[in-house]
Amino acid sequence: MDTMRWLEDGCLELLDQTALPSQVIYLKCRNYHHVAQAILRLAVRGAPAIGAAAAYGLVLGAQQLNSADKSSFLAEVGAIAAHLSATRPTAVNLNWALNRMQKRLRASRTTAIDKLKATLLEEAHRIYQEDLTANRSMGQLGQELLPKIANVLTICNAGALATAGYGTALGVIRAAWDAGKRIGVFACETRPLLQGARLTTWELQEAGIPVTLITDGMAGYLMASGKVDLVIVGADRIAANGDTANKIGTYGLAVLAKHHNLPFYVAAPLSTIDETIATGKDIPIEEREKSEVLTLGGHPIAPPGTSAWNPAFDTTPNHLISAIITESGVIYQNYRKNIARTLNAKLFER
Amino acid sequence: MDTMRWLEDGCLELLDQTALPSQVIYLKCRNYHHVAQAILRLAVRGAPAIGAAAAYGLVLGAQQLNSADKSSFLAEVGAIAAHLSATRPTAVNLNWALNRMQKRLRASRTTAIDKLKATLLEEAHRIYQEDLTANRSMGQLGQELLPKIANVLTICNAGALATAGYGTALGVIRAAWDAGKRIGVFACETRPLLQGARLTTWELQEAGIPVTLITDGMAGYLMASGKVDLVIVGADRIAANGDTANKIGTYGLAVLAKHHNLPFYVAAPLSTIDETIATGKDIPIEEREKSEVLTLGGHPIAPPGTSAWNPAFDTTPNHLISAIITESGVIYQNYRKNIARTLNAKLFER
Repeated sequence: MDTMRWLEDGCLELLDQTALPSQVIYLKCRNYHHVAQAILRLAVRGAPAIGAAAAYGLVLGAQQLNSADKSSFLAEVGAIAAHLSATRPTAVNLNWALNRMQKRLRASRTTAIDKLKATLLEEAHRIYQEDLTANRSMGQLGQELLPKIANVLTICNAGALATAGYGTALGVIRAAWDAGKRIGVFACETRPLLQGARLTTWELQEAGIPVTLITDGMAGYLMASGKVDLVIVGADRIAANGDTANKIGTYGLAVLAKHHNLPFYVAAPLSTIDETIATGKDIPIEEREKSEVLTLGGHPIAPPGTSAWNPAFDTTPNHLISAIITESGVIYQNYRKNIARTLNAKLFER
Repeated sequence: MDTMRWLEDGCLELLDQTALPSQVIYLKCRNYHHVAQAILRLAVRGAPAIGAAAAYGLVLGAQQLNSADKSSFLAEVGAIAAHLSATRPTAVNLNWALNRMQKRLRASRTTAIDKLKATLLEEAHRIYQEDLTANRSMGQLGQELLPKIANVLTICNAGALATAGYGTALGVIRAAWDAGKRIGVFACETRPLLQGARLTTWELQEAGIPVTLITDGMAGYLMASGKVDLVIVGADRIAANGDTANKIGTYGLAVLAKHHNLPFYVAAPLSTIDETIATGKDIPIEEREKSEVLTLGGHPIAPPGTSAWNPAFDTTPNHLISAIITESGVIYQNYRKNIARTLNAKLFER
């Protein structure tokens, strides 16, 4: 099941993740507004998937421009990128992809608009493919951290659906499973939008990996009962010091893992690291509509007029993270130094 | 809104809490099977409320007996008590109330069956009234622990609906509010059955106390953000050493409170203390149908065939509890000694 597909006639098909698991619907995005809308309403979600979708969104926007010259084309592409970028504040891959696309344009020697448009599409494909490759590498590197028999707790969906494919946290689980390890997964349902209940269970069942659903409040008792050996989560943005923003509830799992002496791993591509941000305190945390908390599948769960709080993410400080699994290697404390070193090595490699 | 009402024609009316907040329905229980059924399906829930309801259930059962003599009456009442007791394993108030009712019968000098039946009703009324009084005392004693301005986090519903009235944890909050303190409450929605979203918000709104709903996974970030000053929860069973079983998710809140240096209070009547159990390890934890996790309001939230785990309670070790608020005083560490002292003083007082 592809998270997204590019059709050569100029259309991005996005799997509508709000309809899963009951319905498999592909949204046909024919302009960048469609893509922005899909990101806004979480039809496509997960930091790396948002990055790739936004890149294709920028392609769609650019393809419809009738700019007279390169400089006006660049300016108009910039405006579209700003529009796409404004959809969601926390996942840094969104800006990372949009910046990379524009940098590629600026670096291009050609001034032919058609060629620039083709360059953008080429770069979007590259972002998509690199994410796929990164997930496979993360899987291989990360799975070595897992014992031969392991019960793993995860939250939200950091799987194929959250990326170009294979997944970050679930990629590590897939790779361990494929390596013949005996893996069981506990999936936190991840209220309010139930990405764990709807997406992670579905994806793991498709892969034949045993998964048991729990409510978010059960994680502590699960750990105290000795039913779980480690925690792996994805990330929406990682600060230069390793502090990690991820789905709301992640921080609580990290505190609980520490209390129970369980490893707590973050799996994310280097594109999720935001070196411009020193610590987690500076990562913007999206607050979404309170209706998400007050309802479930459109059904109210609280009395009319109830007040609610709905932060979509939280930040886990680096000292609670046992390791950050990236495509270029597993990064351990001390994170500031080791993250910088890994990013520098990557730059050098290019 | 009464949690339960005894009608003199021999009927226990129970507010059907599964229908709240959208509907206010009173179930008419005319025999003990109706009461057992209501406890089983959580129409009445909350340890003290279950205790009082079971006491009235035993009255209904006894009233319909045609026993020839006291000893056969006692035996038949015992069988009904065993049936009622088997409904739910964790809340000790259930057995506590049923044992107290039967003890009262055995202590009675009369052999007239009618008088014994009347004695049972009298004792059930006493259990109900004492719970109400206990909650008021707990409220007064407990509210002194709260600062003049306090944001309080709670889970599940430990309110009027969980008791004969006023509430345990919410009783403390009510008393603080009535004492003029500026109190705000954050209510964990409490998946799977949403007692926080459905009942606590409703009850506090009726009382005019500000309440904000959060999902269970938000508690960690709430604490890290400095939005909450302390945690108060109820209890389903407290071991002799203070280890406390309460709604699933409570243990996680206690670990998080410790991590953030926030007080974590348990409010419960002495009837919730089970001196026969040395530590929390021996408290039976009810596991309920996995369908509760896999659905919400009858709507599936996970793919068909998904596996789930559904413990209804967890146990919080005594070292994570700042104090246990009872009607006879606030109990601090070291709990084994101080709980025994409080229970002894209570015995002496009678």
